Parts: sequence; C-alpha cells; structure tokens
Amino acid sequence: MTGLTIWFTGLSGAGKSTIGQRVATELRERGLSVEVLDGDEVRQTLSAGLGFSKEDRDINIRRIGFVAELLTRNGVVAITAAISPYKDTRAEVRRRIGRFVEVYVSCSIDVLAERDVKGLYKRALAGEIDHFTGVSDPYEAPEAPDVVVDSGTQTVDESVAAVLAAIDASGLLPEPAPRG
Amino acid sequence: MTGLTIWFTGLSGAGKSTIGQRVATELRERGLSVEVLDGDEVRQTLSAGLGFSKEDRDINIRRIGFVAELLTRNGVVAITAAISPYKDTRAEVRRRIGRFVEVYVSCSIDVLAERDVKGLYKRALAGEIDHFTGVSDPYEAPEAPDVVVDSGTQTVDESVAAVLAAIDASGLLPEPAPRG
Repeated sequence: MTGLTIWFTGLSGAGKSTIGQRVATELRERGLSVEVLDGDEVRQTLSAGLGFSKEDRDINIRRIGFVAELLTRNGVVAITAAISPYKDTRAEVRRRIGRFVEVYVSCSIDVLAERDVKGLYKRALAGEIDHFTGVSDPYEAPEAPDVVVDSGTQTVDESVAAVLAAIDASGLLPEPAPRG
Repeated sequence: MTGLTIWFTGLSGAGKSTIGQRVATELRERGLSVEVLDGDEVRQTLSAGLGFSKEDRDINIRRIGFVAELLTRNGVVAITAAISPYKDTRAEVRRRIGRFVEVYVSCSIDVLAERDVKGLYKRALAGEIDHFTGVSDPYEAPEAPDVVVDSGTQTVDESVAAVLAAIDASGLLPEPAPRG
C-alpha cells in the first residue's frame, strides 16, 4: 500500500503549491503515482461557486478531502495545497483519510506582505478585502503538524527536504532506494 | 496500465447503480482497484448545492468526470452512475478521460413508472416535478455507446455480463484469468 495524503496548510502565498509541486516531483522519481490538488485550481472545478465564508471554506476542504481519500485508498499519493484555515475541518479530513501527513507552511504576515506575489496583501491590509485569511479572516495554525516549514527563513530546497524527511519518518511510504 | 472509466448513463431508476455495483464486484475479484461514483452520493458531496438546470447538471457531470479522470490516470477503474442526460457533456468527459467505456442503461418510461422505486415517476408524470429527466426534462440517449443494456427486458445478471463483455472487447483492461 502506497497511498498517502500530504496535506499542506498555510496562508496564501506562503509557498504551499511551490513546495508541494517539488515534493510531488521527488516522489514521482521514486516511482510513486502522485496527484497535486491545488487550492486555486480546485476552486475552479470542484468548488466553483463557493465563497469564503466559514461554511463555504469547510465545504471546499471536505471536497478536497473526499478526492484525496479516494486517491489515497487506491494507492495514490495525494498532495493538497489549500489554505485550509480551520483546525476542526483539517482534523475531520485527517480522521477520514487515516494515512495522512500534515505540513504547516509557516510564514509571517510581514514577509508575505513584502513578497505579495498576487498583490493581495497590500489590499487586504488596507481593509479592501473581506475574508482574507490571516488579515481579515481567521487562520488557526496547526498545534501538532507532522512537520513545520518556514518559507520566510528557509529555502525551498530546505523545506522540500524537511517534508520528505517527515514523510519517511511517518513510515507510510516505502523507503526510498539509496542514491549514489 | 489498468485505469478505465466505465460511464453509466440512463434515466433515474433504470438500474445504473445496481448494475454498476455488480460490475465493480466482478472487477474487484480480478484484483483491480475500483471506485463507484454514484450520482446520488456525489450530489451530497462534490455537488451539494447544485440544482437540475442544464447548467448545474453539466457542472455536476464535469465534477464527476474530473474525479474519474484522476482515478483513471492513476490506474483505478472508476465506475460512474449518474443520469448524465446531455450528449455533448458526456462526449466532453469522454474526450478528457480517453480510457472510457460508455454504458447506456435503457428502460422504457412505462416500466420505470411501474417500478417507481422512489415514488418519483408518479409525481413527475402528474406534473408535480420540474426538471425530471425523461418526463419534464430532456434525456439525450447515446447514439453510439459501447454497450446498451435494457433493464426492462434483461435480468441484472444478463446486463452485468453484457457490460463485462464490452469491457473485455475494449481491450482497455487486462484479460481476466480463465475460471474453472
């Protein structure tokens, strides 16, 4: 059995998709089947029409969880990269899926506002965006994630290595063949 | 590669889920990974909140198609059992997925109204339900499905055998081991 869900959580722009895609590439090189469920993409397919209220965010996360569960129980590694701000909802999908590694991509608002890839933090901090996670909407940081990476202080390479180490430590995937 | 989507289409109550579940059981006995995406179940998860307008039905079918595609390209047999009344939308998911067998579960309205498992046909025929497929909403029968079964004239066993024969004829799954 090689199915697993690697669940990234963290603020917008923190680096969930970037790190998740890199982890996907590494795991594919080990011969595993990997799918990335990116939050922005899912909102255009499975969750089109949903907004950013707590209720809609929870529905969005449960849908991603449902698909991740289908993939995981069929031997696929599902990597999810959605903000997933609410602790209870993350705990719920974790319980349902079972084979689960939670990755918290931490990053300070200061760094995110300076980076501001999509130009959203400036507007959110100016009070122009309702329901913007971490600014005008809650983000409940994980209390006991399987691994924390900090994209404000680590390179992407360092974060990817930390996530892979946590996956290997979980014992949920076959050991990688030694390189050399 | 063992991934495949087996797409059942037909009116409500025609027997899509019953036949689909039996086909799933047969394929699992061959050692394949199989998931059934049942229309009624999907409407409570992936498609909660959607109605029965053409637009909403199309979104529903595209979501089922999205999940079936993920499963199929990872070596899983996805069996879908949703009315999927519109020809163009079925053609669209078929194109996206590629490895695809279309099963048309035919059944006359007379037989369905007599069976009327959920008590809906009586009400629909009395004009009490808008957007009821086959009565007050269109159903575009497939012109060239991979197999047609008729639950009004065939037993479930006969329909299951016909679907399995069509799957084997498609060459998209490994040949079953001979029994006996």
